[in-house]
Amino acid sequence: MQFTSEQRLDDGVLEREFTLGEIPGTLWTPDSTAAPAPLILMAHNNSLPKSQARLVARGRHTAAYGYAVATIDAAGCGDRPRSAADEQARAGLRRAMQAGEPVDEIFESLVGPLVEKAVPEWRTTLDALLALPGIGGPVGYSGWMALGIRLAAVEPRIAAAGFFAGGFVPRAQREEARQVTVPLLMLLQWDDEGNPRQRALDLFDAFGTKEKTLHANLGGHTGTPWFEGEDASRFFGRHLK
Amino acid sequence: MQFTSEQRLDDGVLEREFTLGEIPGTLWTPDSTAAPAPLILMAHNNSLPKSQARLVARGRHTAAYGYAVATIDAAGCGDRPRSAADEQARAGLRRAMQAGEPVDEIFESLVGPLVEKAVPEWRTTLDALLALPGIGGPVGYSGWMALGIRLAAVEPRIAAAGFFAGGFVPRAQREEARQVTVPLLMLLQWDDEGNPRQRALDLFDAFGTKEKTLHANLGGHTGTPWFEGEDASRFFGRHLK
Repeated sequence: MQFTSEQRLDDGVLEREFTLGEIPGTLWTPDSTAAPAPLILMAHNNSLPKSQARLVARGRHTAAYGYAVATIDAAGCGDRPRSAADEQARAGLRRAMQAGEPVDEIFESLVGPLVEKAVPEWRTTLDALLALPGIGGPVGYSGWMALGIRLAAVEPRIAAAGFFAGGFVPRAQREEARQVTVPLLMLLQWDDEGNPRQRALDLFDAFGTKEKTLHANLGGHTGTPWFEGEDASRFFGRHLK
Repeated sequence: MQFTSEQRLDDGVLEREFTLGEIPGTLWTPDSTAAPAPLILMAHNNSLPKSQARLVARGRHTAAYGYAVATIDAAGCGDRPRSAADEQARAGLRRAMQAGEPVDEIFESLVGPLVEKAVPEWRTTLDALLALPGIGGPVGYSGWMALGIRLAAVEPRIAAAGFFAGGFVPRAQREEARQVTVPLLMLLQWDDEGNPRQRALDLFDAFGTKEKTLHANLGGHTGTPWFEGEDASRFFGRHLK
């Protein structure tokens, strides 16, 4: 893991860009130098870039609560090169959306492979992060639900997961949901235009964990109220600290 | 309002029993004598008595967070005398439940009139409580959803409401839900045997308020996790303090 830049923020959080082989990432660590900080892996739904403003704000904010927070652009995500199949699926998605045609199968062909390719890169990153001084377990996961389901199902170091329901979840991950047994907080925007509410409720029902909580708030995809950030920190506080 | 007994609890909360005409009640007030404490009216679903252990624990706990908390046994609730119609409906309910027959219409005939009779008594109690020294507005409501819908719809002094979804909501209150415009937190137990989940979700959808949050947790009627008590206090903190 190579750090390529660093910036000390106003609240004492250290923000560092890194590369790990082909993987670019950002790591936010809190000011305190006491015990190792619990780690939270944070991913944005559907391959949005790690530099996206809301994700960056969430990373900084969460680190200020005393967590090490990391995000990466996995293969095909953010500014990483896309495969020809990816480009074709994205073009098809734009066409279908403009024409008002069904998009489920296109999303399936786009997001399914993204998750498949992302999981090993996130695990490699996890190995490297846990080898750094000042970062400890247990490990939490926050954000992109499809990726998080797969990671929580296959990666025993994930101890708690916060999922944002506003993203497409491929069939494979809908089926894997019952294998998720870690404590879970699912965040749902009640009127998220592109993400049918009933699918999120069905998925919440399907998760195999005994300790799961759903927080739903009125409003569209980007309308999550500020206090949910605090609620998420308290959720991770109960399970990672 | 006549205080009939008082008890200082370990955490400094003062617990007082009172009567107001025919209405018996309990008032919990916090230790601090600084600014007037915001008031929370707390009612148990479906007329359970004010002395019920979980309600008492919730009242004490909430007062320790700095709120004045009051509960009453309204007409026909708790140990108050029941009308012949009430007794008949309750007997019919027991028979229907034992026989596995539909209970909706019996609940309607039981809970509908209970709410009707309870609302004026809660408003009279509210007048008396706000006249006490050390208790101020704004006023929150917590608990019995059917009563709370009606109170929030007709009582402008209610500024925020926390509803527990585990109780029967009569038709009149299902229709009044769209008149509820105060900030709202609804608590749902995902596997509440006697209270269909879909009805609670439909009701959450129907509320007229723009600021509404649903918290759902796995488990049955009495399985609400401890951290929801803290979440409720934070919700009221945002709106009453």
